[in-house]
Amino acid sequence: MAKLQSAFRRFPSLPPIAGMRLGGASARIRSRGRKDLMLAVFDRSVPVAGVFTSSTTASAAVRWDRSILAGGRSRALVVNSGNANAWTGDAGVQTVQQIVRATADMVRCPIRQVFVSSTGVIGEILDSSKIRNALPKLYRKLTPKDWAAAARAIMTTDTFPKGATRSANINGRIVTINGIAKGSGMIAPNMCTMLSYIFTDARLPSKLLQGMLTAANKKSFNAITVDSDTSTSDTVIAFATGTVPLGFDPISLRDPRLIGFRAALDSLMVDLAQQIVRDGEGASKFVTISVRGAASSEAARGIAFSIANSPLVKTAIAGSDPNWGRIVMAIGKAGQQINHDELAVRIGRFPITEGGGVRAEYDESPVAEYMKGAEIDIDVDVGVGRGRATVWTCDLTHRYIAINADYRS
Amino acid sequence: MAKLQSAFRRFPSLPPIAGMRLGGASARIRSRGRKDLMLAVFDRSVPVAGVFTSSTTASAAVRWDRSILAGGRSRALVVNSGNANAWTGDAGVQTVQQIVRATADMVRCPIRQVFVSSTGVIGEILDSSKIRNALPKLYRKLTPKDWAAAARAIMTTDTFPKGATRSANINGRIVTINGIAKGSGMIAPNMCTMLSYIFTDARLPSKLLQGMLTAANKKSFNAITVDSDTSTSDTVIAFATGTVPLGFDPISLRDPRLIGFRAALDSLMVDLAQQIVRDGEGASKFVTISVRGAASSEAARGIAFSIANSPLVKTAIAGSDPNWGRIVMAIGKAGQQINHDELAVRIGRFPITEGGGVRAEYDESPVAEYMKGAEIDIDVDVGVGRGRATVWTCDLTHRYIAINADYRS
Repeated sequence: MAKLQSAFRRFPSLPPIAGMRLGGASARIRSRGRKDLMLAVFDRSVPVAGVFTSSTTASAAVRWDRSILAGGRSRALVVNSGNANAWTGDAGVQTVQQIVRATADMVRCPIRQVFVSSTGVIGEILDSSKIRNALPKLYRKLTPKDWAAAARAIMTTDTFPKGATRSANINGRIVTINGIAKGSGMIAPNMCTMLSYIFTDARLPSKLLQGMLTAANKKSFNAITVDSDTSTSDTVIAFATGTVPLGFDPISLRDPRLIGFRAALDSLMVDLAQQIVRDGEGASKFVTISVRGAASSEAARGIAFSIANSPLVKTAIAGSDPNWGRIVMAIGKAGQQINHDELAVRIGRFPITEGGGVRAEYDESPVAEYMKGAEIDIDVDVGVGRGRATVWTCDLTHRYIAINADYRS
Repeated sequence: MAKLQSAFRRFPSLPPIAGMRLGGASARIRSRGRKDLMLAVFDRSVPVAGVFTSSTTASAAVRWDRSILAGGRSRALVVNSGNANAWTGDAGVQTVQQIVRATADMVRCPIRQVFVSSTGVIGEILDSSKIRNALPKLYRKLTPKDWAAAARAIMTTDTFPKGATRSANINGRIVTINGIAKGSGMIAPNMCTMLSYIFTDARLPSKLLQGMLTAANKKSFNAITVDSDTSTSDTVIAFATGTVPLGFDPISLRDPRLIGFRAALDSLMVDLAQQIVRDGEGASKFVTISVRGAASSEAARGIAFSIANSPLVKTAIAGSDPNWGRIVMAIGKAGQQINHDELAVRIGRFPITEGGGVRAEYDESPVAEYMKGAEIDIDVDVGVGRGRATVWTCDLTHRYIAINADYRS
């Protein structure tokens, strides 16, 4: 079976964002020589926005970032891979403080402007001295161009670095948005988690940036699932260096001059989210599930995720089996309102159900042929209302079991 | 790896229940010669109670049973395996009507006293003539003793027939409860589903029987998960032949004279539910997850199922990996209130976490040794309140993928 992710291995060319520098280095947290430390520094404190895991066992870094988000400004971002510093008790809180203090002293800013993330093994103490020792050298070497190095430094079980760029026109000014991400699943507390960092040169206040980030996150990172598990460290942070003035003071999310920027941000984040799914643990197929006709968009999401998370649907897809009965089952277990007689399930361009049963003229052979492909679309209309949602997932394969049932080593 | 279920292959000896006969036969619905039709007939119409799948795509049989349950009486139960008659539209409704009519004519009762279940492939039309042709011969051969044949006739991907019996003392009278079940997962619309039928000779009114069944179901069949999927056909029906008078008219669930019977019913249903988990698709380990200290029993259930359904926890167990970080992750994603510093996770008799981190004296080697066993206990105290729950599950193995990713054949 062709590896799904192979087409995405080449890291895209990301342009510089004025007002910031970044890079990656090895702090020898995990394996010698491998990049495991990323640093981004802004010329001055910049507006920042963030969304974080809903887990009640969130990591020390997530809890720190959340606590300083209200300040709305950032000078630096420090991310390490190889150790999640999660469920490490008071020691973990101390580690975060030490990293934040060392970075703040180095770039000369208040500690509450230093954002930090850690990803990797849960429950092991992270020795902050490795990071503190590596930071000064990395700081001196930062450039406006080292996006690939930064994206590589935050990888864990990822098989390729993830990045994307977009440009947008705001009120006649051309602005840039760059993003990097890591994750081989929403999930996987053993070795990975979902992290993404977005940077733009547009001059946007933090409150507005937050509103746009939250909305885009719902359509992108919150619309993917690999295995339904949720990390203790999931983090998306956006920074606006503001080197491109917009000629007006944007204050409302509904300002029509922001439509292009918002569309670009949505597109960038969907791109990064899909890269994570394509790199999903053991994934051999990329699956798009679109639900319409639901009572509300939340109901549509509930149905779409019920399908996307169903182990029986995911194994059927892994086996190229057009087992539409499992899709009906997954729709049923979502517990959302459906119109039994109007329910229409489609795989690819092939309609399958009508009138509460399979279509009389249904022919399985072309659907079985379609299912052998690497990109599978499932469309469902539940015939009740106007709620819609699209989510992305991958199949559930022997490789997922092999990756996750193997002993940590 | 030893097959987990091997110890359970022998069907237990179930005594007769006066006032009823049952048996199993082949109606050639699936493979020739294999038993696929079960019939139970009561000497007179008897009180009946039932609980059914919460799926909104419930099968035609489930919808029929639900519609006649309010009548509170039954003379016959017909179950076929090999075809679920689910998502078969109007044709499926006709099939149920034909089966019910043929059975009612045969045993001479109103059609609304005939309960019916179907389990097997979804979306294929079930030809009722096969069942109608096989019924008269099966009816003539029914005996009070053919529990094993009945249990075999309802199997699909099950690897062993499932049965249990208990006796109880009500007000000085000894009564019997027998139960049979099938299911190789809560789930698996392709070839299986969870079905269970309970029979007792105690003279109990249907309303009381319903109350006791609903309560016992919550602690048993609703406390197991193999893969988090929910069938379109899950059904539990209880019948009380009433040949043993109790010397009083029981009307309240809280009547202390019913305590022994309720405990026996709970125990019987937990036994059957655990047999289903032990026969879970691909299962190599039986896992008991107990949560206490939650804000409520519902909160405790939410946390227990979050652990039990987590693919990462289940694959870690399959790999005998004491990866407690994944348990903490699953607790976190449940979204229930926890006390970070008091959270205590225990695997077997080994305490692992305290004070929001791993215990200083934690030694992984004996836990890794324990994880190699076939019976794994996970205990969690979230340190908030008095809510408790216990659920049972199995691990997620390569065999589950092999069973479910193979093409239907």
